[in-house]
Amino acid sequence: MEAASGLAVSGLGSFLEADDQRHQAFHERGCRASDHGLETVPSAPWADAEVSSSFDKVRAGRALEAGEALRLRSALLHRMALMDHQRGWVQQFHLGALRNNSTRMRAAAAENVGCDSMGDFEMARPLARFLDGLDRQAALPKTILYNVNPADNELFATMAGSFNDGSVPGKMQYGAAWWFLDQKDGNEAQLRTVSNMGLLSHFVGMVTDSRSFLSYPRHDYFRRLLCNLFGEDLLRGRVPDDREMLGRLIAKVCFANARDYFGLPLGTAASPHAAA
Amino acid sequence: MEAASGLAVSGLGSFLEADDQRHQAFHERGCRASDHGLETVPSAPWADAEVSSSFDKVRAGRALEAGEALRLRSALLHRMALMDHQRGWVQQFHLGALRNNSTRMRAAAAENVGCDSMGDFEMARPLARFLDGLDRQAALPKTILYNVNPADNELFATMAGSFNDGSVPGKMQYGAAWWFLDQKDGNEAQLRTVSNMGLLSHFVGMVTDSRSFLSYPRHDYFRRLLCNLFGEDLLRGRVPDDREMLGRLIAKVCFANARDYFGLPLGTAASPHAAA
Amino acid sequence: MEAASGLAVSGLGSFLEADDQRHQAFHERGCRASDHGLETVPSAPWADAEVSSSFDKVRAGRALEAGEALRLRSALLHRMALMDHQRGWVQQFHLGALRNNSTRMRAAAAENVGCDSMGDFEMARPLARFLDGLDRQAALPKTILYNVNPADNELFATMAGSFNDGSVPGKMQYGAAWWFLDQKDGNEAQLRTVSNMGLLSHFVGMVTDSRSFLSYPRHDYFRRLLCNLFGEDLLRGRVPDDREMLGRLIAKVCFANARDYFGLPLGTAASPHAAA
Repeated sequence: MEAASGLAVSGLGSFLEADDQRHQAFHERGCRASDHGLETVPSAPWADAEVSSSFDKVRAGRALEAGEALRLRSALLHRMALMDHQRGWVQQFHLGALRNNSTRMRAAAAENVGCDSMGDFEMARPLARFLDGLDRQAALPKTILYNVNPADNELFATMAGSFNDGSVPGKMQYGAAWWFLDQKDGNEAQLRTVSNMGLLSHFVGMVTDSRSFLSYPRHDYFRRLLCNLFGEDLLRGRVPDDREMLGRLIAKVCFANARDYFGLPLGTAASPHAAA
Repeated sequence: MEAASGLAVSGLGSFLEADDQRHQAFHERGCRASDHGLETVPSAPWADAEVSSSFDKVRAGRALEAGEALRLRSALLHRMALMDHQRGWVQQFHLGALRNNSTRMRAAAAENVGCDSMGDFEMARPLARFLDGLDRQAALPKTILYNVNPADNELFATMAGSFNDGSVPGKMQYGAAWWFLDQKDGNEAQLRTVSNMGLLSHFVGMVTDSRSFLSYPRHDYFRRLLCNLFGEDLLRGRVPDDREMLGRLIAKVCFANARDYFGLPLGTAASPHAAA
Repeated sequence: MEAASGLAVSGLGSFLEADDQRHQAFHERGCRASDHGLETVPSAPWADAEVSSSFDKVRAGRALEAGEALRLRSALLHRMALMDHQRGWVQQFHLGALRNNSTRMRAAAAENVGCDSMGDFEMARPLARFLDGLDRQAALPKTILYNVNPADNELFATMAGSFNDGSVPGKMQYGAAWWFLDQKDGNEAQLRTVSNMGLLSHFVGMVTDSRSFLSYPRHDYFRRLLCNLFGEDLLRGRVPDDREMLGRLIAKVCFANARDYFGLPLGTAASPHAAA
């Protein structure tokens, strides 16, 4: 961190300054989103003095007790969220995976070889406490919550809904189907959940995994599933047979919403249909 | 409570007497059901002496420790269930919501402004302990369990089933889809769960929210979803094409079951079909 | 145990020798699978000296503290798994039921009268720890995980997937729909989960409950649901219209996979279609 930021790190305060400098550097290069992969969100109440001292302990190579570690992680995550809010970024959370289940495979290969599963962690209270802590300071960034265990689909969608404040359309998002759930049944369940618990027309749609160029076809697959959903509803008389209106809604979910939400300089057409 | 009941409340004993007097007063005006909105059911074992003393503490404006509060709440809920049983009322539980997530909105507006979400509380053990405590005394009232997180649908339905005793048809009910779940997918899931885990023909059907007259149309919507379910099963050959039998079953779920279960003086026709 | 094994049991060591002798005796009579019905898998770290002493305590009729009991159960389950691995057995786990909810019915009738429900126990961490403990010793038996609360369907399927090692096709299985879930919706959800999270072509299929000869028809019902699933996918163009290939896959799930997985001497035809 010292090398990257050019700042000396002597404690938690200067570490956060260096972190902020890196955040700014990424911002200048066009980055508009952060992403955290966690079991559940750390959100224990902390005292500044204690977490500063915990930071020093860790730096000195000493271990923290579970409670100390949780409070330090809670403080760090809160501060990082403040940076996201300050620069208008979107904070993203990928929650619920239990990782590295097989010690043998983890030793034999590198980490992240895929011996992961869904977990069943407590989600609701920690998420509410974390988001509320930011909301109280009027510093809650745009947020996308992704879950990996489908038992939590509706919980996540309603949690996002609790903190929408009207400042940005769809400010709080229940994110696209992730990982194990990024298949036909999982995507359809996610879309139904957004539609039942929130507002599908504000959904920012599918995500591209930056590590694999092969993830682009998932956008095409997602668009087909989304169109299927409206096509089925139209055939059964559940939505009006208004192709113009439905086309605009679908184009928003597939393109315009993400452009506007992330503030990307990607053209102004609200809909390919409108342009045609 | 003293003003309403006309009784002096000097401690837990006289509070419960006053509560019982109010219960009787509502009974005389035709009330036949109670309703509790809770995260999960408080059902810790308690000692009468301790909870009496906790009641005095609260009345004196002193705070209780978490364990003390849980035991006092457990004792109170048990006693209220005994009143329901004694007068033949139905006790209802709406469980699983995490409320007032946003401190800012709670301060800005009144309470109950809608900044709530689904929670992921432990449900099974506390529910089993509470219902068992009443069942052991042969004092378990008719009971309806409503859940807000659909991950608990089947758990709730099987929990109700564990305590059916044959004394009243459908004595223990898994209740109609509630709140976030009171939409097409949620109602269909609730009906399938009742049908798979229990006995749909004993289901007492949809509920009207007393606070909003606009909730009446949900009864019409519920009836259509219920008829759709049987219509689809009939078309696919999963139920006999016996309109008389299916019509009677649907009429029971939409009207007669609730009338008989709550003991309401609402006419004697078992089915509009039978009457026609 | 002493009478059945003909061995004197003086402590945990000799108890496990007697247990191993019984395991061998069952093996000689053709048994190839064990089965454990548990709330969740006990998998606390233990020390041999402590669990030996806990065993002596129990034998002397003294009660164990909760932590001691958990560690003793963890040690016993691990040792039984080693026996399964040594003789090539399949270990099965039926997890998640909350049993004997009604004390009154349990006293009035025998145990297991059906006053059970689904529970909501922590599943992921204990399962990962238990399976990892065996995997680290290269002693993980073939394993089938059955869940009773459908909120855990996908969790169980991905947990099984975390420990597949290529040594046996479908070594780790997410098992057929069990108990409350052994109906149309439950079986279809289980099949979809296997197909989405794992490899349906390796699934060993439906199970016969040894206690009731009436459970045989469930095999027929299961086969029809499985064929329906492929029939629906074929009609909608989601799988190739290749009846030979689909027939072979279905025959594997209905017969050949189980024969090969359990090592049963039941003929060699991979598929009735191939034989025809």
